[in-house]
Amino acid sequence: MTTILVIYASDYGNTEKMAAAAASGVQSVAGAQVVMKKAEEASADDFTSSDGVVLGTPVHMGGMDWRVKKMIDTVCSGLWMQDKMNGKVVGVFASGGGFGGAGGGVELAYLSMLNNFAELGMIIVPLPKMTENYQKGGLHWGPYGRTASEDMGPGSVSDEVLALTKSHAAHVTRVAAALKGKEIFS
Amino acid sequence: MTTILVIYASDYGNTEKMAAAAASGVQSVAGAQVVMKKAEEASADDFTSSDGVVLGTPVHMGGMDWRVKKMIDTVCSGLWMQDKMNGKVVGVFASGGGFGGAGGGVELAYLSMLNNFAELGMIIVPLPKMTENYQKGGLHWGPYGRTASEDMGPGSVSDEVLALTKSHAAHVTRVAAALKGKEIFS
Amino acid sequence: MTTILVIYASDYGNTEKMAAAAASGVQSVAGAQVVMKKAEEASADDFTSSDGVVLGTPVHMGGMDWRVKKMIDTVCSGLWMQDKMNGKVVGVFASGGGFGGAGGGVELAYLSMLNNFAELGMIIVPLPKMTENYQKGGLHWGPYGRTASEDMGPGSVSDEVLALTKSHAAHVTRVAAALKGKEIFS
Amino acid sequence: MTTILVIYASDYGNTEKMAAAAASGVQSVAGAQVVMKKAEEASADDFTSSDGVVLGTPVHMGGMDWRVKKMIDTVCSGLWMQDKMNGKVVGVFASGGGFGGAGGGVELAYLSMLNNFAELGMIIVPLPKMTENYQKGGLHWGPYGRTASEDMGPGSVSDEVLALTKSHAAHVTRVAAALKGKEIFS
Repeated sequence: MTTILVIYASDYGNTEKMAAAAASGVQSVAGAQVVMKKAEEASADDFTSSDGVVLGTPVHMGGMDWRVKKMIDTVCSGLWMQDKMNGKVVGVFASGGGFGGAGGGVELAYLSMLNNFAELGMIIVPLPKMTENYQKGGLHWGPYGRTASEDMGPGSVSDEVLALTKSHAAHVTRVAAALKGKEIFS
Repeated sequence: MTTILVIYASDYGNTEKMAAAAASGVQSVAGAQVVMKKAEEASADDFTSSDGVVLGTPVHMGGMDWRVKKMIDTVCSGLWMQDKMNGKVVGVFASGGGFGGAGGGVELAYLSMLNNFAELGMIIVPLPKMTENYQKGGLHWGPYGRTASEDMGPGSVSDEVLALTKSHAAHVTRVAAALKGKEIFS
Repeated sequence: MTTILVIYASDYGNTEKMAAAAASGVQSVAGAQVVMKKAEEASADDFTSSDGVVLGTPVHMGGMDWRVKKMIDTVCSGLWMQDKMNGKVVGVFASGGGFGGAGGGVELAYLSMLNNFAELGMIIVPLPKMTENYQKGGLHWGPYGRTASEDMGPGSVSDEVLALTKSHAAHVTRVAAALKGKEIFS
Repeated sequence: MTTILVIYASDYGNTEKMAAAAASGVQSVAGAQVVMKKAEEASADDFTSSDGVVLGTPVHMGGMDWRVKKMIDTVCSGLWMQDKMNGKVVGVFASGGGFGGAGGGVELAYLSMLNNFAELGMIIVPLPKMTENYQKGGLHWGPYGRTASEDMGPGSVSDEVLALTKSHAAHVTRVAAALKGKEIFS
């Protein structure tokens, strides 16, 4: 059984919807199960008992939500000290409502999350452009759900982005299944 | 007189149009003049005789055009060794035609250009969201001109993005004028 | 009078020492005064009543301390919405104790802080290599104080790094003084 | 048979030595073979006939060598258009001689290379701190070989960094072997 931990923070429910889509993506892979946690609730045990992690955040000022960073500082840094996550697998996603059509800072938000996972020795799964619905909210680092129109009018994450997030989580799950039990690092 | 060097690479003319808009932005500031160069042509003298630089590139695979990087490696690295650009001013812009509405890698393309200018000791001018037309193609690091629709259909840089690029270059010029002759670094 | 806000988070006192050095750097510039705040305490008023900001953080897992991110999400995002910081000036510094001599993730920690300040429309001051003591702890984005040896043995921020941090804050202060009252953005 | 393509650019031979160490790391894994190419020589066929790529560069002004970027623009961008590399595996390494002990810009150099590989849909292998010799030249994104002392005195890549580079390439090879023939993306 491959176990994937889906973690998220959410302000108005958009990232939570994407997290639910990610969970369904994990479950769409035979032999896989999902554990879902809010960033405030994820424990060291949740991490170590998983084979992979899918982490989602709203984008705030070009970075991850502070609750996600608090989890990284207080939970992940201990796992790093003890070399507990090496060779597990990770993917990321994000939602954002900033102005304009240039990503609003999501790219560096992804990379700042991935900096943590690279330090943890985790294998990173990107999002290829061939994935269905990519053009509706994809960046190569993960799905991006706009929660407002480009001039900051009302909006919410689209069905296409939810489908894309489901696919991304299924990709992560398949890589985790393929690597499970393999000795990668020496 | 404040002199701003506008440098660009261009494949199909979109970044070149943005560079022309940047040049007009420089010239819109009283007491300022512009020198325009393609990346292949910019010399060390062009850099050292300027008070600021505005650099534009097409985005290729999430980074700057290789001709821009060649200029950085072969011209800028010598200026860095000799501490020739400290305290001058810089702004960046880009065009891109990748899939989707999440920036297509432009954010890291900007940062990889700015890594060079930070090493050169240059003061960096961002693009505030209050700038008119920001929502039509702004990222906080600079204007972003889409050259294709989000599913990669035909397109070209919009008038709004050109106006935004003009404003950005005027911002850079004003900062350069304000800092000219000041002793900043010790 | 030019007012610079020095903000920091600190775990064991190293970043706090660097913040004190930054404060002395501000005060070394004629006509400048400093306000010092911990990240948990900095208010919107502290930001808007300053002409520039110097922000320091310990590096945790390749990113800023979560308390700094909380300040960004809860204080800076409101300033961004209201366009309150455009044209002010910023510099950053960091301490870190990670393994090895390759920066331990400090570069992306700097960029994730700067992503916020660029969104705020603030002018960014880098750290040129010609600055005295640069080779003892400089990166082009700011001073970096190692708090442990490269194999994670005991250590603390060196006098050279403190001197470098003082110089960096003086640089930021001079740029803020030169730009104060100028109309940059339109 | 798992085939890994080792690609590099080199100015004075340091990155070339690291590439040779990487090649020996590939060959240390049973059932694996290596193809070595300079960046100027690597063809689309070299990429598509490999199961994974290890790419190394000298760091110039906080970014990759322009010859590496030229390869990305002229070879990799075509592979991206045609979705030819999805699910293959990648690792990166770098050498650098900049001032100071804060990485000299290597972190963003790594990320700008990885931006290309993420767009190509390739699985990214980081370098965990538990890897032997990590503290002598590791960053979580890959091995970093200093080619000069911290004040830019003469130097060359150390034996420890070469050993680290060999280990990193072996890690990449093992991931490529584990994923070979698996259907990851849909």
